[in-house]
Amino acid sequence: MKLATLADGSRDGRLLVVSRDLSRAAYAAGIAPTLQAALDDWKRAAPGLVTLARALEAGRTESFAFDPARALSPLPRAHHWVDGSAYVNHVELVRKARGATMPESFWTDPLVYQGGSDDLLPPMGDAVFASEDWGIDLEGEVAVITDDVPMGTDAQAARTHIILLMLVNDWSLRNLIPDELAKGFGFYQSKPATAFSPVAVTPDELGKAWDGAKVQLPLVVHLNDALLGRPNAGKDMTFDFGQLIAHATKTRKLGAGSIVGSGTVSNRDRSLGSTCLAERRMLETIEQGRPVTPFLSFGDRVRVEMFDAAGHSIFGAIDQRVVKAA
Amino acid sequence: MKLATLADGSRDGRLLVVSRDLSRAAYAAGIAPTLQAALDDWKRAAPGLVTLARALEAGRTESFAFDPARALSPLPRAHHWVDGSAYVNHVELVRKARGATMPESFWTDPLVYQGGSDDLLPPMGDAVFASEDWGIDLEGEVAVITDDVPMGTDAQAARTHIILLMLVNDWSLRNLIPDELAKGFGFYQSKPATAFSPVAVTPDELGKAWDGAKVQLPLVVHLNDALLGRPNAGKDMTFDFGQLIAHATKTRKLGAGSIVGSGTVSNRDRSLGSTCLAERRMLETIEQGRPVTPFLSFGDRVRVEMFDAAGHSIFGAIDQRVVKAA
Repeated sequence: MKLATLADGSRDGRLLVVSRDLSRAAYAAGIAPTLQAALDDWKRAAPGLVTLARALEAGRTESFAFDPARALSPLPRAHHWVDGSAYVNHVELVRKARGATMPESFWTDPLVYQGGSDDLLPPMGDAVFASEDWGIDLEGEVAVITDDVPMGTDAQAARTHIILLMLVNDWSLRNLIPDELAKGFGFYQSKPATAFSPVAVTPDELGKAWDGAKVQLPLVVHLNDALLGRPNAGKDMTFDFGQLIAHATKTRKLGAGSIVGSGTVSNRDRSLGSTCLAERRMLETIEQGRPVTPFLSFGDRVRVEMFDAAGHSIFGAIDQRVVKAA
Repeated sequence: MKLATLADGSRDGRLLVVSRDLSRAAYAAGIAPTLQAALDDWKRAAPGLVTLARALEAGRTESFAFDPARALSPLPRAHHWVDGSAYVNHVELVRKARGATMPESFWTDPLVYQGGSDDLLPPMGDAVFASEDWGIDLEGEVAVITDDVPMGTDAQAARTHIILLMLVNDWSLRNLIPDELAKGFGFYQSKPATAFSPVAVTPDELGKAWDGAKVQLPLVVHLNDALLGRPNAGKDMTFDFGQLIAHATKTRKLGAGSIVGSGTVSNRDRSLGSTCLAERRMLETIEQGRPVTPFLSFGDRVRVEMFDAAGHSIFGAIDQRVVKAA
């Protein structure tokens, strides 16, 4: 099934079940008021949501046109957002562009950072920044939402804790990163609010494209209607979602509704393009000696989407405009 | 007023108003079911909570004995937990112990890290770890809870967004830190779930000890009933809470209920001791050539508390036992 959150003026919005073709929606209020409430009691809520989704598909329940422009992030705020950097090929490129080698351990020990989860951006909302000088960039990613995951869960068991999937645009401020990382405590100002896709879907919606821990489909990213990249999210993913969750739970449990991201999707096959400008600029640096593509400007539009084998949008599109802060 | 959250089997517990002497409590359910709900609508909720607090103080409302052992963290889960390292004297010591100098910018640019906020530990709950080899350590801190803070708020305006204060034990796994920070993305596994004090208090409860952005009182930390330190939280705090909030909002807004921590409280006056074992070990290294005090062992007890001028506990005590994971 597919779930979304309708903007209704409240902080957590209103839970919707959305049809597979993303055209219709039905209120799930009788089952759970919000997605977090459903996740808090998933075993109880899920059967009712599945029944409602079937009724919606069959036209046997009251419904209305689904408008992604009125959708909030499926979780407008969450309690835990940890983002991996699972496409190690991408990390190696970053290093190569600045003439540094990558430690061998990066192939076996996942890189993750903790993100802020109080302000998750609507899929079609503006992305607001105070300055273009900050090096505004997108990062196209896939993320999963978990149920309660105990401390010390291994990668195989972790797969059973994946409840929903979403797409991500992990906004990054590239020119703030060097000074911030040099301080040693990781990202904070350089990783502002993140955007998620209009709907979150259960893994079965992906059919054979879901192998239990990876999504074997291209992530399609456009910048101002020009294709930036369409690398396959299931390819060159060094750490799958089971491994990322296992890494996250080494010293802690994860609460229901925790979001775990893949990091920038990136393939070794360079002909497939990139899902962030930093990677394109690194390739330009390696090939031409300097970056050519600029970071984003106010007014630019960024679109992140994924299609099934028949060409239908699975999650709807993250489609945001870069806007100057008032 | 003083607020607490009673364990009732639910994820977010039940909001209580607690008497100033921490002896009695009253349910605040008629005003807000949980602390997050109160913070989400603070302007509406606060007057009712103040009225209830006054009635409780005057014995004019139904109440019961407040048992901190039944308290959850005031926010059992939050949406944003950012922890500073505002006592730069402490950071300088860390560097000195390993023979490194500290960049001058550390005196003007705050160091912060993003923590996980889905699992905030009860003040008297066990602190569970899989291995003593991880270098289990406490960090005694002060934290504030904010209302909604707009992006780009300056340090002076930020002060007006401080709604509540709490004490913190920011559990740290010292032996996991070097490898994790070397990867460049900051803490994750090395900063497991954090504990907070039994009650959160409005700034007026601190009287003259609150200067609008700092708490001018000693933070008293015991390890197994022996005093570890009692440095003054208002002294040698290079960045006050206004400055930490301003730093946090440079590129993002903060949602209501965001928690901002001070980092390990530390004074230049070494006779006042330390609020974490890492600092004591650094002082031993500087003075004796090697650390003498071990990190924590299973069974150890850690207590973090703060007293007013009359000797009364303001927040109740964080009093936790270090326990081996099952």
